[in-house]
Amino acid sequence: MEPAKPEEPTTQAATEVKAEVEDEVTPFNIAAASDSGIDYDKLVDKFGCSRMTDELREKIERLTGRAPHRFIRRNIFFCHRDLDIILNRYEQNQLFYLYTGRGPSAEALHLGHTIPFIMTRYMQEAFDVPLVIQITDDEKFMYRPELSQEQVAKMAISNIKDIIAFGFDPEKTFIFLDTEYIKELYPNVTKVQKAVTLNQIKGVFGFNDSDPVGKYAYPPIQAVPSFCNSFPHIFGSRKNVPSLIPCAIDQDPYFRMTRDVAARLKYEKTGTFYSTFFPGLEGMKGKMSSSSLHNTILLTDSAADVKKKINKYAFSGGGATEQEQREKGANLDVDMPYQYLRFFLEDDAELAQIAEDYSTGKMLTGQIKQKLIEVLSTYLKEFQERRKAITDEDVKKFMEVRKINPVPKKFEEARKAKEAAEKLAKEAEAGAGAQ
Amino acid sequence: MEPAKPEEPTTQAATEVKAEVEDEVTPFNIAAASDSGIDYDKLVDKFGCSRMTDELREKIERLTGRAPHRFIRRNIFFCHRDLDIILNRYEQNQLFYLYTGRGPSAEALHLGHTIPFIMTRYMQEAFDVPLVIQITDDEKFMYRPELSQEQVAKMAISNIKDIIAFGFDPEKTFIFLDTEYIKELYPNVTKVQKAVTLNQIKGVFGFNDSDPVGKYAYPPIQAVPSFCNSFPHIFGSRKNVPSLIPCAIDQDPYFRMTRDVAARLKYEKTGTFYSTFFPGLEGMKGKMSSSSLHNTILLTDSAADVKKKINKYAFSGGGATEQEQREKGANLDVDMPYQYLRFFLEDDAELAQIAEDYSTGKMLTGQIKQKLIEVLSTYLKEFQERRKAITDEDVKKFMEVRKINPVPKKFEEARKAKEAAEKLAKEAEAGAGAQ
Repeated sequence: MEPAKPEEPTTQAATEVKAEVEDEVTPFNIAAASDSGIDYDKLVDKFGCSRMTDELREKIERLTGRAPHRFIRRNIFFCHRDLDIILNRYEQNQLFYLYTGRGPSAEALHLGHTIPFIMTRYMQEAFDVPLVIQITDDEKFMYRPELSQEQVAKMAISNIKDIIAFGFDPEKTFIFLDTEYIKELYPNVTKVQKAVTLNQIKGVFGFNDSDPVGKYAYPPIQAVPSFCNSFPHIFGSRKNVPSLIPCAIDQDPYFRMTRDVAARLKYEKTGTFYSTFFPGLEGMKGKMSSSSLHNTILLTDSAADVKKKINKYAFSGGGATEQEQREKGANLDVDMPYQYLRFFLEDDAELAQIAEDYSTGKMLTGQIKQKLIEVLSTYLKEFQERRKAITDEDVKKFMEVRKINPVPKKFEEARKAKEAAEKLAKEAEAGAGAQ
Repeated sequence: MEPAKPEEPTTQAATEVKAEVEDEVTPFNIAAASDSGIDYDKLVDKFGCSRMTDELREKIERLTGRAPHRFIRRNIFFCHRDLDIILNRYEQNQLFYLYTGRGPSAEALHLGHTIPFIMTRYMQEAFDVPLVIQITDDEKFMYRPELSQEQVAKMAISNIKDIIAFGFDPEKTFIFLDTEYIKELYPNVTKVQKAVTLNQIKGVFGFNDSDPVGKYAYPPIQAVPSFCNSFPHIFGSRKNVPSLIPCAIDQDPYFRMTRDVAARLKYEKTGTFYSTFFPGLEGMKGKMSSSSLHNTILLTDSAADVKKKINKYAFSGGGATEQEQREKGANLDVDMPYQYLRFFLEDDAELAQIAEDYSTGKMLTGQIKQKLIEVLSTYLKEFQERRKAITDEDVKKFMEVRKINPVPKKFEEARKAKEAAEKLAKEAEAGAGAQ
């Protein structure tokens, strides 16, 4: 199957806007200067990442034998660091692993949180590689003045069950709490804490001197799961297996620092694969956040909740009246129902048709909202069913420090095929010699 | 036995000197402005510690049923924080524990390192209380640019054997490496890292922005062994058992910060008991340090080494010639042989006689040096014999996370006696009722 032609990021229009205020993108705050959202094109250059290319999308398809995920087809995962190098290695049967994480700051995840997990789940399945998931309970406790360790611990377990419900492979996935796995991380943590100056942390994260010292101590803890020797039960004595981190681009500061340190410690630099933000219901200015409930769709929301929230709060790029919509059509760039469908509607042809009809006024705002309500209700119903089935036993299984075979089946098969071919060749040679 | 009358600190003379430069005393550097050494009297007030008193010395004698250690009798442990409170608690059969530590930065300890261990060993025996010993391998790795983790690990094991050779009670002593015990410390570490701002760390330790972030992250790790819930295998569900830390006064910044945080976390504030520094052979200006080998007597030195070093390097307060010494006598305040005898000669009467004879010119420099050579050679010979007998098994035993009964035998006896008395009283009452 041919991959659908990837859309250009719809937000490229934002480069035209002469914004006086710059976009703010840090791990702690996202604020677009323009109503049409973050200027991702500018951001790529500012951060010094590499843009996704058709060539890379085609390579992913070739290596995995299937169309890339819709997030890749639609350029939602739009830039990266060293993804090309990691794919080239993989092409030569050289291992990589996936690394993602979650800071437990709320009992229920929202739709924005699903993006990296959906992507990581797809990549684990498509590439058949191991995955480590860091639950940063230490971070959330130290960064959130109002949270106790007991509260964070409770949220962490709930979040881990949510994460498992995305469908990760229990044979290839290791989930760990920082506070439980710290001893194994600590040799690398102290190496990073020794290699990074206070100045560098300040420069990367923008902390000030009144911040708790824990904020400064923490970034190295998020860095070290990208070094494969932090997981001897998975990688054994293998050295320099690189990691690949699918996440939103606001996490780049952590991994710029991580890559910089990796080079100095003679570790493999982690690769990253960055998505745009999943916007809040009220518009493109910021990402969906747990702090504003009517801006947010939770993974625990019922179909009725979803219907109400989308009808009531989802910012529309359509005409103010039916007549205006019929005449002028909708501005897709700022229309939340359309933007959300880009993330959640699988069928490329159907999405293209909706874009065509809605932007030209053939489709009405009520209709696109209805479509989104159907798509999200179905997604959430299925998610909630999987979530309900997750037990404490499952949590225990995923979190157990256990031997994991990191090698993709197809690497093993390739190795066996090569051995068999060599054996045949030897036998043929021996046969020739005997004649 | 009456306790010998404690000497006033000999360095009080320094208060008379109008020094233009101030003494520098931090955990990282000790430099006296005057040749007669640090002005401890000024330092007590500057740091806000409490001076030792005759009353406290008498209380220690009463509670332990023996003369206090020579370090206490001679005011070498000269100031404290809340030692009085901890002794008052102990008097009422309320527990405390001892906490000390060591940063492994050299294979062999020197005489200066012995002071807190000798004192702690005495206090453990005299009060029959548990002791935790923190080996800060993480600290030394992060603070010393030239050291690898492998080097620190090797020095740590050697240092632990040295420490065990001081004669600690294997039933009541827990020795731990930070890198091995970090998981158990980490909940308290993150609490402290959340409660202390970067500004506070800078203020207390004087780091700058070019320092590795690990230097800032570390002080909370040295703080938390002073909280009893860091050791559930010793204290179980007991809350608020205070610790007492015998150490040199340069460590006060760590424990000022620790006490400040303890109050905010509603933990018991640690008590401290501070000694003067053990001076280097060349004089009172700085403490003995591993960085200058002919200024230092190592615990591995032979009798011949000791003889050579003392005769060659020990700064003398005696007369330049025999005649001058006979006429004017020696200045004890700056005389290293006399100062070292204050630390290592047990017999108070003999020390007083030496002070008398040497300061008046009756005793010659060669003679006091000879006395010191004998005392130290004997001490080192005995230490080295004990050290040679320490095995890897001993190390394992002291470092095992195991149940330790923290209660002094005399508390148990007091409890039993009280119960027996109550039982008798009840029986007597019952007997009276039956009549």
